[in-house]
Amino acid sequence: MNDVIGAHRIDCLQYANWSEKIFREMRKGGVDAVHVTIAYHENFREVVHNIEVWNSWFERFPELIFHGRTGDDVRRARESGRTAIFFGFQNPSPIEDDIGLVEVVHTLGVRFMQLSYNNQSLLATGCYEAEDPGITRMGREVIKEMNRVGLVIDMSHSAERSTLEAIELSERPIAITHANPAFWHAALRNKSDNVLRALSQSGGMLGLSLYPHHLRDGAACTLQSFCEMVARLIEVMGSEHVGIGSDLCQDQPDSVVEWMRVGRWTKDIDYGEGSADNAGFPPMPDWFHGNLDFDNIETGLSAAGLSDTDVAGVMGENWLRFYDASFGPLAK
Amino acid sequence: MNDVIGAHRIDCLQYANWSEKIFREMRKGGVDAVHVTIAYHENFREVVHNIEVWNSWFERFPELIFHGRTGDDVRRARESGRTAIFFGFQNPSPIEDDIGLVEVVHTLGVRFMQLSYNNQSLLATGCYEAEDPGITRMGREVIKEMNRVGLVIDMSHSAERSTLEAIELSERPIAITHANPAFWHAALRNKSDNVLRALSQSGGMLGLSLYPHHLRDGAACTLQSFCEMVARLIEVMGSEHVGIGSDLCQDQPDSVVEWMRVGRWTKDIDYGEGSADNAGFPPMPDWFHGNLDFDNIETGLSAAGLSDTDVAGVMGENWLRFYDASFGPLAK
Repeated sequence: MNDVIGAHRIDCLQYANWSEKIFREMRKGGVDAVHVTIAYHENFREVVHNIEVWNSWFERFPELIFHGRTGDDVRRARESGRTAIFFGFQNPSPIEDDIGLVEVVHTLGVRFMQLSYNNQSLLATGCYEAEDPGITRMGREVIKEMNRVGLVIDMSHSAERSTLEAIELSERPIAITHANPAFWHAALRNKSDNVLRALSQSGGMLGLSLYPHHLRDGAACTLQSFCEMVARLIEVMGSEHVGIGSDLCQDQPDSVVEWMRVGRWTKDIDYGEGSADNAGFPPMPDWFHGNLDFDNIETGLSAAGLSDTDVAGVMGENWLRFYDASFGPLAK
Repeated sequence: MNDVIGAHRIDCLQYANWSEKIFREMRKGGVDAVHVTIAYHENFREVVHNIEVWNSWFERFPELIFHGRTGDDVRRARESGRTAIFFGFQNPSPIEDDIGLVEVVHTLGVRFMQLSYNNQSLLATGCYEAEDPGITRMGREVIKEMNRVGLVIDMSHSAERSTLEAIELSERPIAITHANPAFWHAALRNKSDNVLRALSQSGGMLGLSLYPHHLRDGAACTLQSFCEMVARLIEVMGSEHVGIGSDLCQDQPDSVVEWMRVGRWTKDIDYGEGSADNAGFPPMPDWFHGNLDFDNIETGLSAAGLSDTDVAGVMGENWLRFYDASFGPLAK
């Protein structure tokens, strides 16, 4: 670990094929907190099972990881040489059609929920739908309830109008935990200047993705190109609203990307960001394979001209401030 | 029973507080088939419970009712002096996010499914949303699957664009089981001439509602006004595409209308077609309180100038032809 900056290091999105190896890499890489996905298409009962699985990881490896619920848990992780694991949903499927489940999943320790994942949900529109009517009737109610209990709205896979409306309707800052600016790479999943500005002006956070489909030149993207994008992004959003959300899918079999894309909503195959001849997980860029490689990004950001404070912010301090403000009940 | 026409009599939507009394009224009123709602907001497991409850009604009153699955079951009901009960969902909530459940619910004997109920669903938009983006990505897939197995698409509570797209996308005629023409009473739930024409031109069916919020002058609506509307409607749609879907909610407590409107999607109250000072079930018009009163409609339609053939069609023969064509697998 080459952590000259000394910042807390937070990765605000991973969905790896979890193992002791990866938990040890988190520690070796100095990663104090990881927001892990525990639902793509799962319903409530299925997500409770996923929490049970995480509970057994916590029970088996208490010296490496624990369940994070607050910003202070990130500090506790650093102090005790562990990684705090924060739960999030990429889809509102676990709350089904039941607004009462918002408080229940928060009590179970969930801290992020996307309002839609690629497709239309009961709450909002996903980025692959042809039309985006914005936040639905139920969506407006659920946003209020998420604000009340401290469940963060995440619009990473949502369509543009829904995203702008969520920012507007939410009384609290929202997050886009894993995406990049469209000005750098115009993927459907990356975000327009409009969204980036509205997000930062409302106090929200963007987590930068290392998923190759979100990178300029895909797996061939250079560290320099990525870090120069961050420098430019900071000019658009301000340095306090940018962090990392790597979208790391380490060690996952291709069957997992099929579950992400297809769930149970079609009998056909949908290739999402991929294509028929590029259906599985794409290879990662050579400077980022996982939790051991955050030093590369930190070094690259300094080389791109970011101040130590700005590097520290991007590497984790910005997310930490957001965590501090976001996970508790709405102050009255 | 004053059934001079001799047609099969079908009511293509009821959600009564079921009882032996009501089943006896069905028989006394000469009603050969009723499409009953078994889901407003229920998920799969909950709707299976509702089927279990119906199975116990069938077991207790085999001389009055049985589970209908085909058009021939309507004929069998008439021949054996019983009423065939057809299952339907007012919301796609029972298939959750799982296209595989379409075939499963058809196997369980479900024959109608609305693609949305008032609000946005995973498939289509409901009539109370501010915006209607049309059929979603999952909706297109589910329509194909419903066509394949013989589960009828019902757009009674859907918004206009979604309804027109469902008619267009479906390879088989669809139904609007319970609504009236907006030209007669411009409620949000009633249908525009555009929808009525597209529906009939594609071979679809409209079931006329007796729910007071759908009637001109509400509970004060006269039988003559209703029957003159039918005569005019036949000029728009043709006489073969109109039937009855009374939306009868006999003997229900007001708590049921709250479940219909609010489900689990909001912590507040939503009044739907009602209002704060008119929140419960409205009173029925004096010429239609339930299954004993279909004679009034039959007499009224004749008085409004409909031919015996057209009266027979509206009272049930049109639905019977539609049932014959709709409930089996798609012919290849």
